[in-house]
Amino acid sequence: MIKVTVWNEYRHEKHSEEVRKIYPDGIHNQIASFLNTEDFTVKTATLDEKDHGLTEDVLEETDVLIWWGHIAHHEVSDEVIERVHQRVLKGMGLVVLHSGHFSKIFKKLMGTGCDLKWREAEENERLWVVNPSHPIAEGIGEYIELEKEEMYGEHFDIPVPDELIFIGWFKGGEVFRSGCTFKRGNGKIFYFQPGHESYPTFYNEKIQRVIKNSVKWCAKTSNTYPTYGNHKPLENL
Amino acid sequence: MIKVTVWNEYRHEKHSEEVRKIYPDGIHNQIASFLNTEDFTVKTATLDEKDHGLTEDVLEETDVLIWWGHIAHHEVSDEVIERVHQRVLKGMGLVVLHSGHFSKIFKKLMGTGCDLKWREAEENERLWVVNPSHPIAEGIGEYIELEKEEMYGEHFDIPVPDELIFIGWFKGGEVFRSGCTFKRGNGKIFYFQPGHESYPTFYNEKIQRVIKNSVKWCAKTSNTYPTYGNHKPLENL
Amino acid sequence: MIKVTVWNEYRHEKHSEEVRKIYPDGIHNQIASFLNTEDFTVKTATLDEKDHGLTEDVLEETDVLIWWGHIAHHEVSDEVIERVHQRVLKGMGLVVLHSGHFSKIFKKLMGTGCDLKWREAEENERLWVVNPSHPIAEGIGEYIELEKEEMYGEHFDIPVPDELIFIGWFKGGEVFRSGCTFKRGNGKIFYFQPGHESYPTFYNEKIQRVIKNSVKWCAKTSNTYPTYGNHKPLENL
Amino acid sequence: MIKVTVWNEYRHEKHSEEVRKIYPDGIHNQIASFLNTEDFTVKTATLDEKDHGLTEDVLEETDVLIWWGHIAHHEVSDEVIERVHQRVLKGMGLVVLHSGHFSKIFKKLMGTGCDLKWREAEENERLWVVNPSHPIAEGIGEYIELEKEEMYGEHFDIPVPDELIFIGWFKGGEVFRSGCTFKRGNGKIFYFQPGHESYPTFYNEKIQRVIKNSVKWCAKTSNTYPTYGNHKPLENL
Repeated sequence: MIKVTVWNEYRHEKHSEEVRKIYPDGIHNQIASFLNTEDFTVKTATLDEKDHGLTEDVLEETDVLIWWGHIAHHEVSDEVIERVHQRVLKGMGLVVLHSGHFSKIFKKLMGTGCDLKWREAEENERLWVVNPSHPIAEGIGEYIELEKEEMYGEHFDIPVPDELIFIGWFKGGEVFRSGCTFKRGNGKIFYFQPGHESYPTFYNEKIQRVIKNSVKWCAKTSNTYPTYGNHKPLENL
Repeated sequence: MIKVTVWNEYRHEKHSEEVRKIYPDGIHNQIASFLNTEDFTVKTATLDEKDHGLTEDVLEETDVLIWWGHIAHHEVSDEVIERVHQRVLKGMGLVVLHSGHFSKIFKKLMGTGCDLKWREAEENERLWVVNPSHPIAEGIGEYIELEKEEMYGEHFDIPVPDELIFIGWFKGGEVFRSGCTFKRGNGKIFYFQPGHESYPTFYNEKIQRVIKNSVKWCAKTSNTYPTYGNHKPLENL
Repeated sequence: MIKVTVWNEYRHEKHSEEVRKIYPDGIHNQIASFLNTEDFTVKTATLDEKDHGLTEDVLEETDVLIWWGHIAHHEVSDEVIERVHQRVLKGMGLVVLHSGHFSKIFKKLMGTGCDLKWREAEENERLWVVNPSHPIAEGIGEYIELEKEEMYGEHFDIPVPDELIFIGWFKGGEVFRSGCTFKRGNGKIFYFQPGHESYPTFYNEKIQRVIKNSVKWCAKTSNTYPTYGNHKPLENL
Repeated sequence: MIKVTVWNEYRHEKHSEEVRKIYPDGIHNQIASFLNTEDFTVKTATLDEKDHGLTEDVLEETDVLIWWGHIAHHEVSDEVIERVHQRVLKGMGLVVLHSGHFSKIFKKLMGTGCDLKWREAEENERLWVVNPSHPIAEGIGEYIELEKEEMYGEHFDIPVPDELIFIGWFKGGEVFRSGCTFKRGNGKIFYFQPGHESYPTFYNEKIQRVIKNSVKWCAKTSNTYPTYGNHKPLENL
């Protein structure tokens, strides 16, 4: 059983009727609901909880953290981000969704600006699999069709991903590296571009499958954390 | 002409007679001296100068910044680091030497702890070229021999490098990814492991050649910086 | 001066009036004409010449080989391919254009099937730069617009490229890793997707710029070729 | 249950008493014996069997093929190699051990010469983990100690690996990229350097663990193979 914590800013759903219609219990609960299978134990956490719901204890019990945020990245405390960052380096998996590209934790892990082009225009997106044997693409076939998604376009200001799994095509003429993996310390990270709050993306079965696959892929392993610092020679000098 | 600024913490040379014997004018001036050829215009900057010598004006006139620091990383102001970081993302090259692995700027660009194993034991290092056609390895042959170097050993807590150019062998039994490239934004970064303050590493001609090659490799180009933000469709929707 | 040999199958231009209208002297001569600047010495070679124009002497005098082929890949002799392969491993650059993805030399260097989706439908392509500081993208800006190009779509059956520089967007709904670099031995390889014989792609100034940039990028360097085989220890055993 | 076929040239064991003492039933049977657990169904195949034991039927029933060869690479028929190659591209995993670096199948998949430096001198090797969260390194700790192993030294003439997991240190002064992954088509490949026929490497528990891990990592998945060829537009043109 992989222990997953789904973190959501949970603001749009409170303030916008349009978003609430799609995600009446919040994006986090929709994600939790489809993860709630025999493979995962799922909790949620949100911005307005104490410590944003991400106490040391919660993180200690988290193998994979899923992150959705958008309009309130700056309200996330640096102390909590430092805690999450350390935990990722020690091996906790991290799945960053959509507008989480601008979250403090993603930017801290990437070391870049993480900026991009964007447009809300009800256009369709098609996510092409370019790494067909990757476990995150398992069961997806050749592409995912989304009737409506926010356009995110290149240049996406990230380091070169360790692995590129999906490339997004947008009707308006742009492309995007929509599914990317990174390693930082002992932690595995997956960035996945779809998931705008006003579209029903997290009800799409293939999107759900990708998120499930990615949680399994980046789950904390039993690998030991390396030792650092002064080191005696292993051979005669 | 590539405009290079060599930044040095410049503390060991002031406080240690042993180091001063090797680098009487400071490590920065030794590096500047061998870079001072027709290909480069070289300036230096040090920690104890105003703004650590890295004002907006200086950075504006810098194509490549070389960084050597060790015992005073924490004294470098966050404001200057933010400035250097932004400048790297906009295209300034960065060459990080030896103990600069723990500098604020390198850690900020990497997003990881950047820790490693180390030992000062007067042992020899041999740096093997594993990417023989890379411009940074040009003129080096198969390996570089250093009679004495500080051991830096794996695991080195960095993201997977974009390119691995040198692997270091140490007599005491360790290996190290001793020459690595990274891209962040429009900026190119080269990390190079040798250069302990109490050994004459920067007098070694092959080491000098690698540093010259790397400055050329990561020099700011005329490439334009991408645009970000809201973007009109390029096709009819 | 970089010594370039432009190799072309040169069949479409002989058999099709439509193609001949666009490339009356053959695709090779059009490519040679825009390369013919102070930076390059350019020769051409074609399939129907003796040894396909690629004798040992010609290859010995070639720093970068450009390859365009389409309907007659199978007519290229294995002996010549072996010769070109060895020469790439020893450091000759190789630029493979468009339908060259199915050439014997590209398949031999990749080790994969190199297959893809395709369509000739007079649709437009937009090539987005995803690696903005790469020398091959210098001077290109954010993207290249082609009014008409043959669609090549993912999955493209190549090894993971060392560097991904362009992603192609096609109006019909596909994407493609349209500009990729690879290293094999001491040789650098650039694959570039545009260049269908019935469209005037090689008259486009940005396409010309990419090809010029790529020739410079993959030109043979002075790096020595490694030694292999039995090796005496460098340390006491 | 992952279906594994262990392929061995099986010549040294027949002709050399020294080797036979270590591997009385052949290297293949020693590898099969430690894989023979609840996770795997194991068969063996050897050079001198009909079709080298690698008929279409056998390959059809193989999720992962392990390859050990050394003195008789040239005796492996091109027809069988073509069959294995196609099967790898369609998703069969391949684990290439030690001197298999020079096998026809590995060279065909790499597209390079696959040469290296070597020495038989009874020296020790230490394999350092440089990718600590990789599933192939699970349970290994920081390094593997081998009292005796054949030295394989850089430059190793392979394409840049997709992932570098182990770097080997040799007492005589060399390093080697000793554990590397590659993808070709839908197939995953792991190259692992240890395993000289006259040393008891395959009795080492950590070596066994790496091989088990790698078989799991590269096992054929349920991912569908992409479609290629002419493709109708998915959007209106």
